[in-house]
Amino acid sequence: VSDFRTDRDRDGRLVVFDGRGASNARAHEGRIWLVGAGPGDPELLTLKAARVLAGAEVLIHDRLIPDAILDLAPPTARRIFVGKRKAHHSVPQDEINGLLVALALEGFEVVRLKGGDPFIFGRGGEELAAARAAGVPCEVVPGVSAGIAASASTGAPLTHRGLAQAVTFVTGHAAPDGGEGWSEPVLDWAALARPNHTVVVYMGVSTAAVIARRLTEAGRAPQTPALIVENASRPDERRLLTTIAGLAEAAGEIHGPAVLIVGEIAALADIEGVVDRAALEVPDWKRA
Amino acid sequence: VSDFRTDRDRDGRLVVFDGRGASNARAHEGRIWLVGAGPGDPELLTLKAARVLAGAEVLIHDRLIPDAILDLAPPTARRIFVGKRKAHHSVPQDEINGLLVALALEGFEVVRLKGGDPFIFGRGGEELAAARAAGVPCEVVPGVSAGIAASASTGAPLTHRGLAQAVTFVTGHAAPDGGEGWSEPVLDWAALARPNHTVVVYMGVSTAAVIARRLTEAGRAPQTPALIVENASRPDERRLLTTIAGLAEAAGEIHGPAVLIVGEIAALADIEGVVDRAALEVPDWKRA
Repeated sequence: VSDFRTDRDRDGRLVVFDGRGASNARAHEGRIWLVGAGPGDPELLTLKAARVLAGAEVLIHDRLIPDAILDLAPPTARRIFVGKRKAHHSVPQDEINGLLVALALEGFEVVRLKGGDPFIFGRGGEELAAARAAGVPCEVVPGVSAGIAASASTGAPLTHRGLAQAVTFVTGHAAPDGGEGWSEPVLDWAALARPNHTVVVYMGVSTAAVIARRLTEAGRAPQTPALIVENASRPDERRLLTTIAGLAEAAGEIHGPAVLIVGEIAALADIEGVVDRAALEVPDWKRA
Repeated sequence: VSDFRTDRDRDGRLVVFDGRGASNARAHEGRIWLVGAGPGDPELLTLKAARVLAGAEVLIHDRLIPDAILDLAPPTARRIFVGKRKAHHSVPQDEINGLLVALALEGFEVVRLKGGDPFIFGRGGEELAAARAAGVPCEVVPGVSAGIAASASTGAPLTHRGLAQAVTFVTGHAAPDGGEGWSEPVLDWAALARPNHTVVVYMGVSTAAVIARRLTEAGRAPQTPALIVENASRPDERRLLTTIAGLAEAAGEIHGPAVLIVGEIAALADIEGVVDRAALEVPDWKRA
């Protein structure tokens, strides 16, 4: 499944194989950095993330992190990919936790690079918990989350006077791992259905149909604007402006990573091409 | 109230006075950049924000932006402060909108620098709307919002498996400007009171008592962990871990800008000093 494995050399030191040969074990105290890589545009990395990357000895990363960011690590840094590959599952979270801790205990400066922000649907909390349990120093570097980047690049403000007094981030990922056979995301639909409230859905493309249905059943107007932003902040960013009623059909056109932004403010997005804004339930004066 | 004023010279060109003398009008097309300065730590600025600042001709900023960030603008850039001063109100939003547009129409590269992210309680949407209405190009550069920075620096993940499947950002600011005499924030308390849901409150210190009361009345357990982070990411960052029941008292100790993080995950914050974790309603195994 994954390309790396660890072993002990004849002196008992940890050795990591990742297809480029074994690493060398180190003497000084190691540390884990949980670093947000931002939404994709390398310029949306923080200065701190860039500095931490430049000091990486081991770089453990997901997919979708562009080379321009990975290449900020020194050429001598060992890169370990733990994301999902075609026809492969991603490395299990427990295995990632164990790898981070083992490498840090061995004395490495370990940079765990994650898309967006480590603590917004990034499972960074589980990695931090593993580090704490092992007594390994761990610092978190926040990043620009995909939903916030999508808001900035489309010009649809997540909060806006008169239109959105709150914004909620949820995941549309249906979690079958509870052993209960969940086939849809378990969300508080009544809360999400309130008006004047922006809902940002991560990993919601494949479950867009059920999200739209549940929001409507819970009372949110079917004509509420809904925006899909694929590859936010990247050169191939794509935006589809629709309504909750049209969400499922629009999501069918999306094949890359995307966020859904549902709420009155979605109508403020700067969209090229033909959009039937008349179908959107937003007063005219509120359209910038 | 504010230190700047605008005028026309004898050729009809706009001139801006800000206490340092008049600016010179320009010939080329201007532009507005709405830039998130992040939470305060200059290293949490994005690379893009740093680049845009370096090209600023006029820099319009709020309070609480550290000099290390402001100084990324060239020394020749004109700085205009529009934030709140002691015993003064801040510049009204309409006036800021007008200033941004007037300067951009005059041909300047105008950088509007805002704490955190421009679109999370930053009123950036109103500035973008003014730019669009005037036909002025406007680009938004997202930033690390204060709540996300507070999460990273304290190690309390805003979402966390089993503890928080959603996170909502609200403002605790009571808005009396609707002419209806509001004395408390107008929020959807029932939605915010659901368990396994993180609530991040901006500008909530002065209204912490009413926030705690309304959350409790709406059904959230009084022993739900609550974290106050003052000056998140700055050298003088301070953290108070309490419960909803203790929120008002803890908020009384806070004098700087702060975010409240309410929810089960707040108990995971890394806090020095004495905290009665036994009073927090979080299962032991979930405490990292």
